[in-house]
Amino acid sequence: MTTEEVKPLLPVKTPVPSDIEIAQSIEPQHIKVIADALGLLPEEYDLYGIHKAKVKLSVRDRLKDAPLGKYVVVAGITPTPLGEGKSTTTIGLCQALGAYLEKKVLTCVRQPSQGPTFGIKGGAAGGGYSQVIPMEEMNLHLTGDIHAITAANNLLAAALDVRMFHERTQTDEALFNRLCPADKQGKRKFAAVMLRRLAKLGINKTDPEELTPEERKDFARLDIVPESITWRRVIDTNDRFLRSVTVGQGTEERGQSRSTGFDITVSSEIMAVLALATDLADMRERLGRMVVGNDSKGRPVTADDLGVGGALTVLMKDAIEPTLMQTLEKTPVLVHAGPFANIAHGNSSIVADQIGLRLVGEDGFVITEAGFGADIGMEKFMNIKCRASGLAPDCVVLVATVRALKMHGGGPPVVAGTPLHHDYTTENVPLVTAGCCNLVRHIENARKYGVPVVVAVNRFANDTDAELEAVRKAAVEAGATDAVICAHHGLGGAGAVGLGRAVVAACSGPRPDFKFLYDVNLSIKEKIEIIAKQMYHAAGVEYKPEAEAQIEKYTRMGFDNLPICMAKTQYSFSHDASQKGAPSGFILPIRDVRASVGAGFLFPLVGSMMTMPGLPTRPCFYDIDLDLLTGKIVGLS
Amino acid sequence: MTTEEVKPLLPVKTPVPSDIEIAQSIEPQHIKVIADALGLLPEEYDLYGIHKAKVKLSVRDRLKDAPLGKYVVVAGITPTPLGEGKSTTTIGLCQALGAYLEKKVLTCVRQPSQGPTFGIKGGAAGGGYSQVIPMEEMNLHLTGDIHAITAANNLLAAALDVRMFHERTQTDEALFNRLCPADKQGKRKFAAVMLRRLAKLGINKTDPEELTPEERKDFARLDIVPESITWRRVIDTNDRFLRSVTVGQGTEERGQSRSTGFDITVSSEIMAVLALATDLADMRERLGRMVVGNDSKGRPVTADDLGVGGALTVLMKDAIEPTLMQTLEKTPVLVHAGPFANIAHGNSSIVADQIGLRLVGEDGFVITEAGFGADIGMEKFMNIKCRASGLAPDCVVLVATVRALKMHGGGPPVVAGTPLHHDYTTENVPLVTAGCCNLVRHIENARKYGVPVVVAVNRFANDTDAELEAVRKAAVEAGATDAVICAHHGLGGAGAVGLGRAVVAACSGPRPDFKFLYDVNLSIKEKIEIIAKQMYHAAGVEYKPEAEAQIEKYTRMGFDNLPICMAKTQYSFSHDASQKGAPSGFILPIRDVRASVGAGFLFPLVGSMMTMPGLPTRPCFYDIDLDLLTGKIVGLS
Repeated sequence: MTTEEVKPLLPVKTPVPSDIEIAQSIEPQHIKVIADALGLLPEEYDLYGIHKAKVKLSVRDRLKDAPLGKYVVVAGITPTPLGEGKSTTTIGLCQALGAYLEKKVLTCVRQPSQGPTFGIKGGAAGGGYSQVIPMEEMNLHLTGDIHAITAANNLLAAALDVRMFHERTQTDEALFNRLCPADKQGKRKFAAVMLRRLAKLGINKTDPEELTPEERKDFARLDIVPESITWRRVIDTNDRFLRSVTVGQGTEERGQSRSTGFDITVSSEIMAVLALATDLADMRERLGRMVVGNDSKGRPVTADDLGVGGALTVLMKDAIEPTLMQTLEKTPVLVHAGPFANIAHGNSSIVADQIGLRLVGEDGFVITEAGFGADIGMEKFMNIKCRASGLAPDCVVLVATVRALKMHGGGPPVVAGTPLHHDYTTENVPLVTAGCCNLVRHIENARKYGVPVVVAVNRFANDTDAELEAVRKAAVEAGATDAVICAHHGLGGAGAVGLGRAVVAACSGPRPDFKFLYDVNLSIKEKIEIIAKQMYHAAGVEYKPEAEAQIEKYTRMGFDNLPICMAKTQYSFSHDASQKGAPSGFILPIRDVRASVGAGFLFPLVGSMMTMPGLPTRPCFYDIDLDLLTGKIVGLS
Repeated sequence: MTTEEVKPLLPVKTPVPSDIEIAQSIEPQHIKVIADALGLLPEEYDLYGIHKAKVKLSVRDRLKDAPLGKYVVVAGITPTPLGEGKSTTTIGLCQALGAYLEKKVLTCVRQPSQGPTFGIKGGAAGGGYSQVIPMEEMNLHLTGDIHAITAANNLLAAALDVRMFHERTQTDEALFNRLCPADKQGKRKFAAVMLRRLAKLGINKTDPEELTPEERKDFARLDIVPESITWRRVIDTNDRFLRSVTVGQGTEERGQSRSTGFDITVSSEIMAVLALATDLADMRERLGRMVVGNDSKGRPVTADDLGVGGALTVLMKDAIEPTLMQTLEKTPVLVHAGPFANIAHGNSSIVADQIGLRLVGEDGFVITEAGFGADIGMEKFMNIKCRASGLAPDCVVLVATVRALKMHGGGPPVVAGTPLHHDYTTENVPLVTAGCCNLVRHIENARKYGVPVVVAVNRFANDTDAELEAVRKAAVEAGATDAVICAHHGLGGAGAVGLGRAVVAACSGPRPDFKFLYDVNLSIKEKIEIIAKQMYHAAGVEYKPEAEAQIEKYTRMGFDNLPICMAKTQYSFSHDASQKGAPSGFILPIRDVRASVGAGFLFPLVGSMMTMPGLPTRPCFYDIDLDLLTGKIVGLS
């Protein structure tokens, strides 16, 4: 029942020092060494300093016939403010497999958003003795992917508003002439991206001079209905004052103001495109077909209609390459795509997983992380990501903690800045046992995909053997292949050797008979209802008028055959964050539905979901500074 | 009179292909080779791919006693839509010095803004056979410095709005308790950055418990007057709809909405801090003392008062390292800081120049670029940048073209998309001669700093010998040491060998007796008037009431001893862009004055200056795409 005794290879201390202290106490290897051990050729990566490298997609081509490794997705129980340590477990598991069990292993995690890093949550490089290092580089800028998404998202927004402005202030002829100006020889030419719009309009001509006045007008005037616009601007900062804004209030904008808002960058459709695109050509097509709104005839208007799909791809060209880093125990990590599985898709990228599975080979393991609770992160992994990639997982690891399960069992609320209630710090087996309903449902949900489930119980200092055993028993009874107590936060990989063995065992049989939860060809409502009933245990779904109208519109536009990416609170199976445990029988309210046509999913908003976090009175940034003597960052958590 | 005959080392073609075609036709060297030739040790730079490297400031320490090279600043005549090729000349001159005249040389240029790259202007890596390569990497993201500025600027903006929100919705006591929460042991502690605020308030205590209720209130309540706020958000996109916005319109923001706006990132005070900071410690201090507005008692409120100075420094930690690249003829380039000398400071960074001057050594040359016309870019170089660095230039290179001078002589307007008037394409010596008044005044201005001036006449295909000779004659008569016809756009460094020789000659005498234009200890108005009269030839200065009020306020706050960074149109010596040539006798209107206390200058707004560019009906982005077969970018200009 207690943690298996394996001698840590790391110089672990008790009590466990702060994350940044641990991270800065271990000298990372030159990333070349990590790349070399992973089997990358020198021309297959670009160094970004000595601790990060961008990995080129060409490695996937070189290894296209290589047998794939085992594919393990790490998901969690429904999160609580107490934290279940999912990223930490993902990294600890890889440290165990790589540094103790002699398996070839690669961790695929998501790039942290800088918003929370300076806000409440802090960084997202793992914790304790299970971290990606240098944690400062992972949490800040990394290799610029999120910045590229901000730039691309906002170029599209600027292109959209300015196009409406120019259309309102110019005649059809002036507009056409400006879009297709004569060159020095007096000849007009369509830009390549314009041919896409012409094809969409059914105009089969390549010489601007041949268009009829009617065709010129249809081509040049996008005629976007302002109220139909779903494209918002983004910023990677927790700036609540940008949630709802009015733009275009300058006198030069001639009264063309408009209500809109900013979301956090990681929730941009472009982040989802990055996560789901399988190569540059696929990314180019996805970016070009992103829908920003519709015209007065109800036709969708795309990034390519605005002429900007190519430019967006150019901005995202380097971002498609995952970033290689390392754990504290020198196992390789690919950091790619972004978090926030509540308001976004929230999984690491397809290309990172594909590269990893080929690099680790038949006997190796790729451990990839799905955000938040398994009801959202894992569900999207299965039904959206695996559908786009063609890959199927060999095993699900579900992370739970005694403390979080106590809260699901009805434990008292946790308020930041006040001491933890004694229910969480002293033994209370009935409370844990009551909370296991949450874990059990996640296990049952995961098994609906036909995949074996291993439960990782992330041990905290106050947990007692009886409490841990209660969780283990509930998990195994619910159908988990195994349930293992882990102590990787305090011990590094040594604390997750048991978990590693369980994962190896779960993956040792024949490949599982993976199945999706739903057929994409079902109607939008049928798909939403399958997720609501089978994953969340809702009794039914209720659609607000806006949602009804959008479903009707997207069905008419032909987008009804896309999978579903629910935007739902991570704090409950239901839409109500206060409903802990395993609620059922509720009616799930769908407030609105949006289409991420480029990413390739429909995006129902369940209840009121915030797409831009705020800052508290005392944000993390108060403690963050440079030590000017050593040049080291202090206070990052 | 014709261009000196030197055989180009580059495989030049006629007519000159597009910039991107030329850039992609020359294989760059691995940046290690460039770094090695420049004398950098391997531990003194970090690779970012194989064509870029960030150079550490430690090289400056290693070479602190090294003799400095010659310091040459390239400035231009008053720009016109015809372009005078200042960046191209800067790069061509370095190619000449390095690849033909066997001088150790380093070019210091500014990182292009992505706004114009996708807007009207295109990129800013030079042109023709005088370019920095890979031009795509220079024009897009580079090593992320501008993205870091966006992140830092907007974190401060978010911190500001949210602090006002929390102050409005909390009692003094609640606010204090949230800012200094008790830890698990029940003990309160000030964050290090809070001690700065306490010191400023004259509260000499380090234990939160010892503060009186009055002191707690003064400490915790910044009491910012919303109307006094000068800090705006930024974005590196030409998004005119963000010029004037209302933020905070969500219901959760409880009616705390506010009118504000976004500027282009390169005009952020943080860009100026990056350009002017001499090391990390200096940057930390500058970022912390940036003023965002004032409290109801009229006291300035700073980034450190908001608790965010350290976090901003952490975000900017890597940005302080210049990025090493190369020209088409393999001479080294340091890219650092940003453009827009009209609305910003617009010079490359002090640290890049300092590193360069030590690396090239006594017989070498650092060629650094000052933005737009010499009335703004060079004036700021002399009075702001050299004052902060302690460096003094050995020579000014002034770039002129026959075509631009014809416009200054009264030539017809130039409209994009229509053929050029024949005045610009056929010989018209009287028109050029008339326009030389502009060049002459810039020469006279430059000589007021006690520095020799070399004029570079950037030759275009239609220029005739008689026209070129007219310019040369006017330049020499006005006191230029020399005036040289150059053809580096079509020939690379071979076309600027004559210019290179002239620069070497101008720098061969004793170091010039450099002098500033004004004493910083003069009053704000006196300094503005010296610049207006001596650089612009204004008859006087007129202050709008807002400007008067700000001058009074900043004088009271003790910021009156800062140098002046005029925000003025680049298209005329005057405030009126249509006044070409050498206008005089006008009254310069000062609309407003802002303080960039962290950067260290006051910022008078002359007439109406736009701090956010817009996009035309057909922006550059229409032509920009990826060639999916080769992976190369097309259409970037």
